Amino acid sequence: MYQPPGVKTSPDLLIPDRMRAWVLGDPDQLLLQEKPVPVPSRAEVLIRIDAVAICATDLEIIHSGSPASIEGGLPFNKNFTPGHEYMGTVAALGPDVDEFKIGERISVEIHAGCGQCKRCRQGMYTSCLNYGKPEKGHRANGFTTDGGFAEYAVNHINTLARVPDTMSDAEATLVVTAGTSMYGLTELGGLVAGESVVVIGPGAIGLLAVAVAKALGAGPVILTGTRNRRLTIGRELGADRVVNINDEDAVEVVRQLTGGIGADYVVECAGTEATINQAIQMTNRGGKICLAAFPHDPVTMDLARLVKNNIYTFGIRGEGRSATRRAMALMAEKRFDATKIHTHTFPLADLPTALRYARERVEDAIKVVVTNRQAGAVANAAAE
Amino acid sequence: MYQPPGVKTSPDLLIPDRMRAWVLGDPDQLLLQEKPVPVPSRAEVLIRIDAVAICATDLEIIHSGSPASIEGGLPFNKNFTPGHEYMGTVAALGPDVDEFKIGERISVEIHAGCGQCKRCRQGMYTSCLNYGKPEKGHRANGFTTDGGFAEYAVNHINTLARVPDTMSDAEATLVVTAGTSMYGLTELGGLVAGESVVVIGPGAIGLLAVAVAKALGAGPVILTGTRNRRLTIGRELGADRVVNINDEDAVEVVRQLTGGIGADYVVECAGTEATINQAIQMTNRGGKICLAAFPHDPVTMDLARLVKNNIYTFGIRGEGRSATRRAMALMAEKRFDATKIHTHTFPLADLPTALRYARERVEDAIKVVVTNRQAGAVANAAAE
Amino acid sequence: MYQPPGVKTSPDLLIPDRMRAWVLGDPDQLLLQEKPVPVPSRAEVLIRIDAVAICATDLEIIHSGSPASIEGGLPFNKNFTPGHEYMGTVAALGPDVDEFKIGERISVEIHAGCGQCKRCRQGMYTSCLNYGKPEKGHRANGFTTDGGFAEYAVNHINTLARVPDTMSDAEATLVVTAGTSMYGLTELGGLVAGESVVVIGPGAIGLLAVAVAKALGAGPVILTGTRNRRLTIGRELGADRVVNINDEDAVEVVRQLTGGIGADYVVECAGTEATINQAIQMTNRGGKICLAAFPHDPVTMDLARLVKNNIYTFGIRGEGRSATRRAMALMAEKRFDATKIHTHTFPLADLPTALRYARERVEDAIKVVVTNRQAGAVANAAAE
Amino acid sequence: MYQPPGVKTSPDLLIPDRMRAWVLGDPDQLLLQEKPVPVPSRAEVLIRIDAVAICATDLEIIHSGSPASIEGGLPFNKNFTPGHEYMGTVAALGPDVDEFKIGERISVEIHAGCGQCKRCRQGMYTSCLNYGKPEKGHRANGFTTDGGFAEYAVNHINTLARVPDTMSDAEATLVVTAGTSMYGLTELGGLVAGESVVVIGPGAIGLLAVAVAKALGAGPVILTGTRNRRLTIGRELGADRVVNINDEDAVEVVRQLTGGIGADYVVECAGTEATINQAIQMTNRGGKICLAAFPHDPVTMDLARLVKNNIYTFGIRGEGRSATRRAMALMAEKRFDATKIHTHTFPLADLPTALRYARERVEDAIKVVVTNRQAGAVANAAAE
Repeated sequence: MYQPPGVKTSPDLLIPDRMRAWVLGDPDQLLLQEKPVPVPSRAEVLIRIDAVAICATDLEIIHSGSPASIEGGLPFNKNFTPGHEYMGTVAALGPDVDEFKIGERISVEIHAGCGQCKRCRQGMYTSCLNYGKPEKGHRANGFTTDGGFAEYAVNHINTLARVPDTMSDAEATLVVTAGTSMYGLTELGGLVAGESVVVIGPGAIGLLAVAVAKALGAGPVILTGTRNRRLTIGRELGADRVVNINDEDAVEVVRQLTGGIGADYVVECAGTEATINQAIQMTNRGGKICLAAFPHDPVTMDLARLVKNNIYTFGIRGEGRSATRRAMALMAEKRFDATKIHTHTFPLADLPTALRYARERVEDAIKVVVTNRQAGAVANAAAE
Repeated sequence: MYQPPGVKTSPDLLIPDRMRAWVLGDPDQLLLQEKPVPVPSRAEVLIRIDAVAICATDLEIIHSGSPASIEGGLPFNKNFTPGHEYMGTVAALGPDVDEFKIGERISVEIHAGCGQCKRCRQGMYTSCLNYGKPEKGHRANGFTTDGGFAEYAVNHINTLARVPDTMSDAEATLVVTAGTSMYGLTELGGLVAGESVVVIGPGAIGLLAVAVAKALGAGPVILTGTRNRRLTIGRELGADRVVNINDEDAVEVVRQLTGGIGADYVVECAGTEATINQAIQMTNRGGKICLAAFPHDPVTMDLARLVKNNIYTFGIRGEGRSATRRAMALMAEKRFDATKIHTHTFPLADLPTALRYARERVEDAIKVVVTNRQAGAVANAAAE
Repeated sequence: MYQPPGVKTSPDLLIPDRMRAWVLGDPDQLLLQEKPVPVPSRAEVLIRIDAVAICATDLEIIHSGSPASIEGGLPFNKNFTPGHEYMGTVAALGPDVDEFKIGERISVEIHAGCGQCKRCRQGMYTSCLNYGKPEKGHRANGFTTDGGFAEYAVNHINTLARVPDTMSDAEATLVVTAGTSMYGLTELGGLVAGESVVVIGPGAIGLLAVAVAKALGAGPVILTGTRNRRLTIGRELGADRVVNINDEDAVEVVRQLTGGIGADYVVECAGTEATINQAIQMTNRGGKICLAAFPHDPVTMDLARLVKNNIYTFGIRGEGRSATRRAMALMAEKRFDATKIHTHTFPLADLPTALRYARERVEDAIKVVVTNRQAGAVANAAAE
Repeated sequence: MYQPPGVKTSPDLLIPDRMRAWVLGDPDQLLLQEKPVPVPSRAEVLIRIDAVAICATDLEIIHSGSPASIEGGLPFNKNFTPGHEYMGTVAALGPDVDEFKIGERISVEIHAGCGQCKRCRQGMYTSCLNYGKPEKGHRANGFTTDGGFAEYAVNHINTLARVPDTMSDAEATLVVTAGTSMYGLTELGGLVAGESVVVIGPGAIGLLAVAVAKALGAGPVILTGTRNRRLTIGRELGADRVVNINDEDAVEVVRQLTGGIGADYVVECAGTEATINQAIQMTNRGGKICLAAFPHDPVTMDLARLVKNNIYTFGIRGEGRSATRRAMALMAEKRFDATKIHTHTFPLADLPTALRYARERVEDAIKVVVTNRQAGAVANAAAE
């Protein structure tokens, strides 16, 4: 059995030496293989993965390698395991770790900074200047280090958030997404009660941005998009107004709902040239835009309006500032029902099917979750 | 003589009822006319204008009305007096003003917010939501309210900074520009000692951005541009390295000088598509870009790099956060010699010539200053 | 009838020339007198007062004049009307005011800064350097300018928050208190979801601090005090744990509930030497304390622990940073039930009785509200 | 010779296996002993110590063990080496370290956070919640881990700042103190150009706070104290006004120099009840106080003035926010001459004499520096 030196394990949670893991071969080629169970170092733990949600970025990494490819080459045929929106159970502890106990259920955030660069030292670990250098301590599981489409993964303790008994495995996987939405609002100012927020794009991040903004008291919260079924979910998650941009002029609606001046904050989650320019038009003087999505090709933008109106933009590449823990705090208190975006569930062995549902939006799939709980394992999670 | 009710005047500084003022007729048409001397209200003073510098934005306003035209229509044939980089002498006090004394020399900043909108209440008076509405208390002298190409102007006391005796009138006009540079650095974080700063574009704002950054201890400070004479002035103002982008790859130089990671802060003062994209390429992960200039047409940008690298951009439309007073504090202590960018001087009556020098860069003109001191007036400024 | 020049009125809301107002004579002497209805200036409105809550500070001002006496002398026998936690109906508009309409129901915050001092320009209007100088534009209604124990009052538009139809007059008076609680949390960092907050002292501010912290997702929220009935209300408002310090060691309980390290934030609302030192002992390294109350006499404090543990303290004299509007946003969404602290109601004519209930805590009074609605007036507030 | 596995050394800088180190026995007993040269781990380097300055806190630790004793017991008879204001030469690199090169001269800051607690993750490594737990990665050299009164020490790379060739060893030791002063100003707001700063107490931190504040453009900068010789040094370091509180009422002087309103920022470095209360009286509404010193006994303070005037206090236990690097940047540019506070120099072997000079202020000693350069070693520092 698994018992690396210096690592603390428990007889209650036996760990094999090897595990099943999906591995990226050529582009779009995922192979279910055996790998050694990884070993946690100082300040790290081993996680038994119980559930993983599929993110659009997973599809992109599997298909084209971006954006991980920016740092250190394409991830193909390197024995790399993708998947970053997972939750699970603490299975073993690295040396001197006492912050968590074996058996605790946790969800994760993606980025563990190196802790030794300028950005990490400022608390901006998502912007770690040693991105993609695991030897410096950086991890972005599922991007530059092995991720969650496997039975086990190693995580830095900084990336963990405890899952309350009242939250199901599937819901806990959504904390990663909610954390990204929360981070966007954090960078925009955070104190959004009574302030106007527009969310562009009812994907997973956008829908949870609506939920988080509303939970924090923002108002009005306006959601724009093109698919009415998703806009309806946005309404259920608290949007005061939804706009189908095929039917209405979103900029005009925002102006009307904000006394003619535009919104205080815009969270752009669609990533098209058209919507980015809508964001610029919608934002009021001194307002702020979070860019949470982007097209791969250069974008032609009305930069003059940004400059003339003192508008700031905040590009975010994921979660940060411990926003995942704050999102978890809201979800633990049931301030919003993130499961409204969870549409499909498959076992880990069916990952290719799950990915297809996500990619092709089969049956209007939004969030597809892959689970890895054996029948026996379920027993110890009575609350589910 | 001038003696409006409620306004405090002094026998030491007699004010006529009417004054000479340049007035904007058709585009590019400036006429020297007579106007009544304006009257300060509560929290305002009357300034006798002693010197005015010419800004590229003045040329733009006179030619095409932008950007003031954004708010409230084109300024042509409306008896409007442009000019916003001025200094002068407090000549009369509005009701209840005791913060300044008649006879004090002051320089100005452009924006006086309404004081009653959300942005003003946050301290973001440059982003006043009542921009262009003088009835709400907003003033942007030379943009939406009468400016400095005249003998007198009214200013809110918030916009004044005292000029020390050791500073000449011409140098004091440069505080407006230095304040804009300082504001850019303020929004970027302000604590720039030991941090890397790139300034793109050796215009007046860019050159003083070099000077302010260096005064605050930034290093390396890198200036990029195309004109060697201006780059040389940048060196004199403290740039550790200048890059003529016709000769060198600025992005590459910045990478080399920053250990391969890029700059912490970039102040973009050139406003071309090429330089804006250079700014994006130069900035390190988690770094920040101040957009202090812009092209009128939409810009095609590599937005993906911004988002993937957690880069933030800060559009600024002028000074703010009382940065002008902070710039004045540094200039009063002679921390840098702003007069290096002052190249030509003309009397107010020769404004058209002065504008031509600025527009056509006659004799490599950078900052052209127009003065309005009569022979007798000079006597009371011994230090000049 | 009331029709000052430049002021906009409406035939739907007739205003008499004179009004009834309680006026402070000698200490503890309040007289019901007639006064002229006041006149709003630029950016001000006239409010018809519909309800006023009594604050402990009112009792103090009426008794000893402090803290208003700090600025500009004791308020006795100066025709001064106290009362600052009021709400009402916009009855008339000052010149150029179009931000509000006659007939709108509003609640207030206390402080309108001068808008022209350094602090106001920074957005810190509660710290206005022209405090107590109405000629500079400063108002602190009920402190330095006439307040709400009257039929009408003048308010700067910055101090108004709209009351939704679904909120009663009495509840709307509590927004002033909730705004102070919100401001305390704002200064402490604002992003409190998932962070530990201790509130010391279950008075009105403390109880609503519990409610606001919980609404924002803080956890655990711990309330300490001596009166079990109030602690019970704290529980109803969301406290995860209440501590009667007569029965338990509050510092020890906080340590146990925070993994031994102490709380992230402490809001001190009791203002005794003992509780202030408890706050210092409870706060974790790098944590923050909001001082929302204070004893009049000097306090002996363990300052060494503050310094050695990088603890910051934030004294607040009331609301600020537009926190009242944010509190209103949460209350409008029914995120907490502030009316749990409202215990008694009296008509304005019975103010002395109301004050006695508040001062002597008759029948365990917490918040005593005084109402001024005539039978006819109620008709236009159908939703109540 | 020294060659631990995984550690990179260089033939140019030979390291013995054992070194001389001063070790704390009983209180006030320092013994020169032999110890193994310590071994750097990941992200750490071995420093050959070239010079160490003596801080008042060293004297306190040697005498009474405080403040390190707060965390983990008294440091007596535990083979502990004090000393925290040192500089030296990188002598060996821990695994994977490439941020520094062997042979580089560096100065240090004291605190290396664990990198894994909440505070470290916020960038507040000085407030590390694992303070005093080296097994979690925390180091506070000279406080909780071995310090600089020795030939070698281990430092985390985060704590290093490069020393330019133009700076002497002795001057480089002062960067630790300047970093603390800089950190205090950072927490107070950082943008101090044109703002008023009072420094109370002309000790080493106070004097360099004057220098840093002035370098950043603050004005007026006022220094108060009781010893005229030190006040004179404060003047040389840039104080606009010095106040001997035996001769003048410091509060009154500050009020006069600040237009009657008090100072924007006060840096309290004297740590007496009297001066702490002076700080409270001197600070203007909305102003801030940095508490950089403290008496051991509880202090009786006028807390009411803090609360009523929205004054914030910031306790600091040392440097932080990478302020040491910012201080180094200013010193490298010769913006102030920190060597004015360096009064005496002794060889490491004479540490007891050096400590006596510092403790008893022999010959008006301010900063006493102990050097450890052998004759041969000096050769490679041509610039000195």
